[in-house]
Amino acid sequence: MKIIGISGSLRKASYNTSLLRALVSLQPQGMEIEPIRLNGIPVYDGDDEKATGKPAAILEIDQKIRAADGVVIVTPEYNFSIPGGLKNALDWISRGKSPLKWKRMGVMGASDGPIGTARSQYHLRQTLQAHEAIIMPRPEIFVGNASKKFDAEGKLTDDDTAQRLQKWLKAFADWVEKKP
Amino acid sequence: MKIIGISGSLRKASYNTSLLRALVSLQPQGMEIEPIRLNGIPVYDGDDEKATGKPAAILEIDQKIRAADGVVIVTPEYNFSIPGGLKNALDWISRGKSPLKWKRMGVMGASDGPIGTARSQYHLRQTLQAHEAIIMPRPEIFVGNASKKFDAEGKLTDDDTAQRLQKWLKAFADWVEKKP
Amino acid sequence: MKIIGISGSLRKASYNTSLLRALVSLQPQGMEIEPIRLNGIPVYDGDDEKATGKPAAILEIDQKIRAADGVVIVTPEYNFSIPGGLKNALDWISRGKSPLKWKRMGVMGASDGPIGTARSQYHLRQTLQAHEAIIMPRPEIFVGNASKKFDAEGKLTDDDTAQRLQKWLKAFADWVEKKP
Amino acid sequence: MKIIGISGSLRKASYNTSLLRALVSLQPQGMEIEPIRLNGIPVYDGDDEKATGKPAAILEIDQKIRAADGVVIVTPEYNFSIPGGLKNALDWISRGKSPLKWKRMGVMGASDGPIGTARSQYHLRQTLQAHEAIIMPRPEIFVGNASKKFDAEGKLTDDDTAQRLQKWLKAFADWVEKKP
Repeated sequence: MKIIGISGSLRKASYNTSLLRALVSLQPQGMEIEPIRLNGIPVYDGDDEKATGKPAAILEIDQKIRAADGVVIVTPEYNFSIPGGLKNALDWISRGKSPLKWKRMGVMGASDGPIGTARSQYHLRQTLQAHEAIIMPRPEIFVGNASKKFDAEGKLTDDDTAQRLQKWLKAFADWVEKKP
Repeated sequence: MKIIGISGSLRKASYNTSLLRALVSLQPQGMEIEPIRLNGIPVYDGDDEKATGKPAAILEIDQKIRAADGVVIVTPEYNFSIPGGLKNALDWISRGKSPLKWKRMGVMGASDGPIGTARSQYHLRQTLQAHEAIIMPRPEIFVGNASKKFDAEGKLTDDDTAQRLQKWLKAFADWVEKKP
Repeated sequence: MKIIGISGSLRKASYNTSLLRALVSLQPQGMEIEPIRLNGIPVYDGDDEKATGKPAAILEIDQKIRAADGVVIVTPEYNFSIPGGLKNALDWISRGKSPLKWKRMGVMGASDGPIGTARSQYHLRQTLQAHEAIIMPRPEIFVGNASKKFDAEGKLTDDDTAQRLQKWLKAFADWVEKKP
Repeated sequence: MKIIGISGSLRKASYNTSLLRALVSLQPQGMEIEPIRLNGIPVYDGDDEKATGKPAAILEIDQKIRAADGVVIVTPEYNFSIPGGLKNALDWISRGKSPLKWKRMGVMGASDGPIGTARSQYHLRQTLQAHEAIIMPRPEIFVGNASKKFDAEGKLTDDDTAQRLQKWLKAFADWVEKKP
């Protein structure tokens, strides 16, 4: 089972990129998560698209998604919603026929506040509905107070979170494979 | 009364930029709407911000907003939510102390579908809550079927929409001036 | 294929109950939609539940849903969200183990405004996520300006809407049967 | 300054009714919060309304709200949204001319989960926008893990929460009085 994992943050020391790495380190047997980041994608402008088409980074992501069995997005929360950069990538990806159509998906996120990106995740779910993705409804992962759960190198050090991630991965494997 | 009007679309023939122009042409006596666009703003990356600070375009918008009595955002809808580019600009603007705090605001939008950007506007309202903006609750403007309401040069040709905009502008002038 | 259709409105001349009737009249071969209404359900109070358990009307709905292959909710929009009565029924239904878990679902709605219950439908989708329902992402049905689309007896008279419903029913049959 | 406080829960031992009591006990000098509950309100049915008008409980709440300087709603979260009973009360209140129009409002909530009713509060804010209420954007109060923060009699025992409430009340007094 081939899963694409997308971090919605561009900065190197991102909690969300760290959370995605934790997912990779905990992936169950039979699941292979390939982490990707969203660097090098310009802000969408319909005139640019008409002139030069999709950026190479978007074409590559499109192909990876099409070849995968499932996709996980690990999203920060900026201003009570999806980060502009992640939303912009999804806007580019949606042009033409979205590779996320009927793709089995999961969402999660980490923040240093108490709410753990809930607001961002629900907006993201609505955007992924536009793509016709089929998103696992539950369990959900909201990693709050992230600064206490990752060490200085971005390694997950919180056992409770690790256990939740393992449980989530098991549920997600079923979601992708058994297609309930 | 000085109002900043922001179009959430970058492309030249945008319905939303046309709608903003229509607003300017209908502005009531005593109100001056300065339209601005969001070109030239890179995708937010916390590492870039640390290295080089805010882009010049964001610093300029910040100053214009601070000097204004109110702000109107005219937003497209991409994938059932705020366009990535507009959200990205708002993410940049929020860094430090947002100039939108307690600013009197209005939102509207145009699309060629029947819903006229409603989904985008509600997500936008939630994001502007994070900025602590004070957004006019009603009336609302959802310009649907936009291709039939603007001519080839982007001029508003639909009388009913023009009347709604006039009514909206009057309500917005009260919103900004009387601060209910 | 057995489908339960729920109208979120209690009043007799409801556009949404009319829309549900239109769905029944257009049901494709092999699909049988049983319409149900939500009358006779008290407002949820945890103390009442402890004292007397679930109301008979809820127990009956629970059984019907469990026996069905899919569920469609046809919802009005009250105050930019789910009608209190419909939400209340869903709150009762969720107590214990929701019969909507992993049930294939669809949502639609009718209103006399231009937006056709979009705001209500997205809130409803979030509530149904809590139930772990698997909701068809698209196509969507927003019947706006409903007073011009149904006659005095509540019969659908708008051909375009009828065609959209037929297309929707075909997509929903696939959603329920093929489980993408 | 006269404030109406509404608990969105009907059960006696509700965390939200306890949270509202805590607000009353912490009210700053010059503010008087009158707590009200939503018992005795039938599920809205347009036919009933036509036959017998608004219930007495709604008429009483309407008058209290009109006479108040501000309104606070303390809401539980049911199924990722507003409790049906609270939404139903707001639907009744909206009939005719809502007393919440341009009323200064605040929202908060308590739950035993980690998110502290965030999902409910954002849906509630959208519903209150329909009423044209003017809702304080920030600070926000999400009381998570409520079972550890109230004692068996429903008294708030968590100092951190008490301090947040005091800060919130001070901000809300400004919101109501200074009308930014």
